[in-house]
Amino acid sequence: MAKTTIRRPQVSIIGSSEADAAMLTLAAQAGAVVAKLGFALVTGGRDGIMQAASKGCADAGGIVLAVVPGTSMNEANEYCHYVIPTGLGWARNVITAIAGDIIVVIGGAAGTLSEIAFAWMYERPIIALSSSGGWAKQVAGKTLDHRQTQPVIDCPTIHEFEAALRRLLPTLPTTFAR
Amino acid sequence: MAKTTIRRPQVSIIGSSEADAAMLTLAAQAGAVVAKLGFALVTGGRDGIMQAASKGCADAGGIVLAVVPGTSMNEANEYCHYVIPTGLGWARNVITAIAGDIIVVIGGAAGTLSEIAFAWMYERPIIALSSSGGWAKQVAGKTLDHRQTQPVIDCPTIHEFEAALRRLLPTLPTTFAR
Amino acid sequence: MAKTTIRRPQVSIIGSSEADAAMLTLAAQAGAVVAKLGFALVTGGRDGIMQAASKGCADAGGIVLAVVPGTSMNEANEYCHYVIPTGLGWARNVITAIAGDIIVVIGGAAGTLSEIAFAWMYERPIIALSSSGGWAKQVAGKTLDHRQTQPVIDCPTIHEFEAALRRLLPTLPTTFAR
Amino acid sequence: MAKTTIRRPQVSIIGSSEADAAMLTLAAQAGAVVAKLGFALVTGGRDGIMQAASKGCADAGGIVLAVVPGTSMNEANEYCHYVIPTGLGWARNVITAIAGDIIVVIGGAAGTLSEIAFAWMYERPIIALSSSGGWAKQVAGKTLDHRQTQPVIDCPTIHEFEAALRRLLPTLPTTFAR
Repeated sequence: MAKTTIRRPQVSIIGSSEADAAMLTLAAQAGAVVAKLGFALVTGGRDGIMQAASKGCADAGGIVLAVVPGTSMNEANEYCHYVIPTGLGWARNVITAIAGDIIVVIGGAAGTLSEIAFAWMYERPIIALSSSGGWAKQVAGKTLDHRQTQPVIDCPTIHEFEAALRRLLPTLPTTFAR
Repeated sequence: MAKTTIRRPQVSIIGSSEADAAMLTLAAQAGAVVAKLGFALVTGGRDGIMQAASKGCADAGGIVLAVVPGTSMNEANEYCHYVIPTGLGWARNVITAIAGDIIVVIGGAAGTLSEIAFAWMYERPIIALSSSGGWAKQVAGKTLDHRQTQPVIDCPTIHEFEAALRRLLPTLPTTFAR
Repeated sequence: MAKTTIRRPQVSIIGSSEADAAMLTLAAQAGAVVAKLGFALVTGGRDGIMQAASKGCADAGGIVLAVVPGTSMNEANEYCHYVIPTGLGWARNVITAIAGDIIVVIGGAAGTLSEIAFAWMYERPIIALSSSGGWAKQVAGKTLDHRQTQPVIDCPTIHEFEAALRRLLPTLPTTFAR
Repeated sequence: MAKTTIRRPQVSIIGSSEADAAMLTLAAQAGAVVAKLGFALVTGGRDGIMQAASKGCADAGGIVLAVVPGTSMNEANEYCHYVIPTGLGWARNVITAIAGDIIVVIGGAAGTLSEIAFAWMYERPIIALSSSGGWAKQVAGKTLDHRQTQPVIDCPTIHEFEAALRRLLPTLPTTFAR
């Protein structure tokens, strides 16, 4: 049975520090969609995809949380409203991977791959913006192993992404009061 | 040089699941003070001190973040606006210990002691509400080792706590835009 | 410059709890090769690939270390000489991924994929026993991103595995005294 | 019921990098006792107490494991036979705190205090060599909270330490085959 809560639904956007202009534009658009639909955004708090998504969300009036690998409150990029330092190095990826009700992959190098794997193991629904390339493209539409039956949801466009978020929200194991 | 940021200053309140009525009242008052001064509250998200502080903050219009030991978004108590699951068991204590610009101890058993130690190692200013007993009382006014010269700040009353927060805010290595 | 040390070189074998008979046989053979060449074996300490590799190594006179996700010293399988409990859940995968001078992948589901990603990020040489299927097969011969230039080494047979270990040993950033 | 195992019993010695000559001598003696009684030694792998205990154990023919905060296999001191890098920073303290069947405290600053707290939470028997000062002295003979009823065992001398290890060994939840 779903638990009713005052908390906001959360989307975690994962993707790497290095990204080209098209990927950054897509990340900013995705962040704006997250804000528009009333989700809070969680990212790893650094540059590249994380920064672009954070800016897109913050500029659209959304709330942004950063889960950073180091121990300083000042490690996050400038578009974050709340910061969770971990001091865990790349092991913080297990947290960004599960700190969303829904996980979204944009582009992505090996760090993103570790997050995809953890999101899968801890049974979060995963959306891949496959046009961004990287590991997003490689896992889109696939199952990683037998733990989950629902494959990684392939969203080639930002419109399909918005539709997927709308479709997933009422299926989550939580009832959101607002 | 302090970094200017849109993020809110954060206070992390640490304390244990088991607490008597006086400790819970104090925790709720402390949460309300945190909200009143414009800080966001971070706790370990569970019951006892964590829940009372969260309720006090949320009831006063403040924002509450929960950093929980398990992997479920539903593990946090009902007064939390944002949830960060970690899946780390008690190792999540290193995160609650550093996820505040200022750390506040109320009562506290061994788990709280681990958080005090990490907050000290990672050089966060620590305030102990010493009238709450537990490890708060035992570390109030003391230094844990030679890493920091400023002892744990002893605040026997809620008024001294509010004064200490006001005094510490402009000393933080961050300039807050609001 | 390589550091000279009394420590033994270590191989970490990663692979999942679920495995068919052919994969288990291969894991046991790989463990025996690790022992024969004078490496200590590290695994995640549980069943399936981890247990078979541990048995193969222990039966061949080798030393086996287990890095387990829980907190009990008794969580490891019966072929381990030393046990490191972590209490970190699946986040312990970051440790199994870097607790070898060389990382070896056999079969593998999503947990193994997270370990491959971390081994890559932390720049360990990775060998994939590709005939075992799973993620071992999918990453063999490939690069995961631009961090490393050397692809995952594809060893289709146990003989090629032994040759690869012999070839890699003198290239490690450590000089072993024995 | 105790589990029978081929693994060796393990003692984890915790203590800080900074230590005076008397503390280092005591740590070396403690390491030698650990070796003499057939335990393997686990430490945090760095200098000070950790290095002295490792040398004492290795010189007496014992086996030494290092659980280090960084990601390099070469981070451990020169008296370690096996190395477990974690990449977790000070969060690795949760692991050194539970990677022994018995935990031994020598001296100790805030890092050691965090390890004492975790060892207590995860219900390991703790011995404090109280003559070494630091947190060892402060917790000797005390209970940290209501989780355990057995206080931290106070061993003022190395002879009492050896006697305590002999007394505890048959009480552990494991039956050792050798």
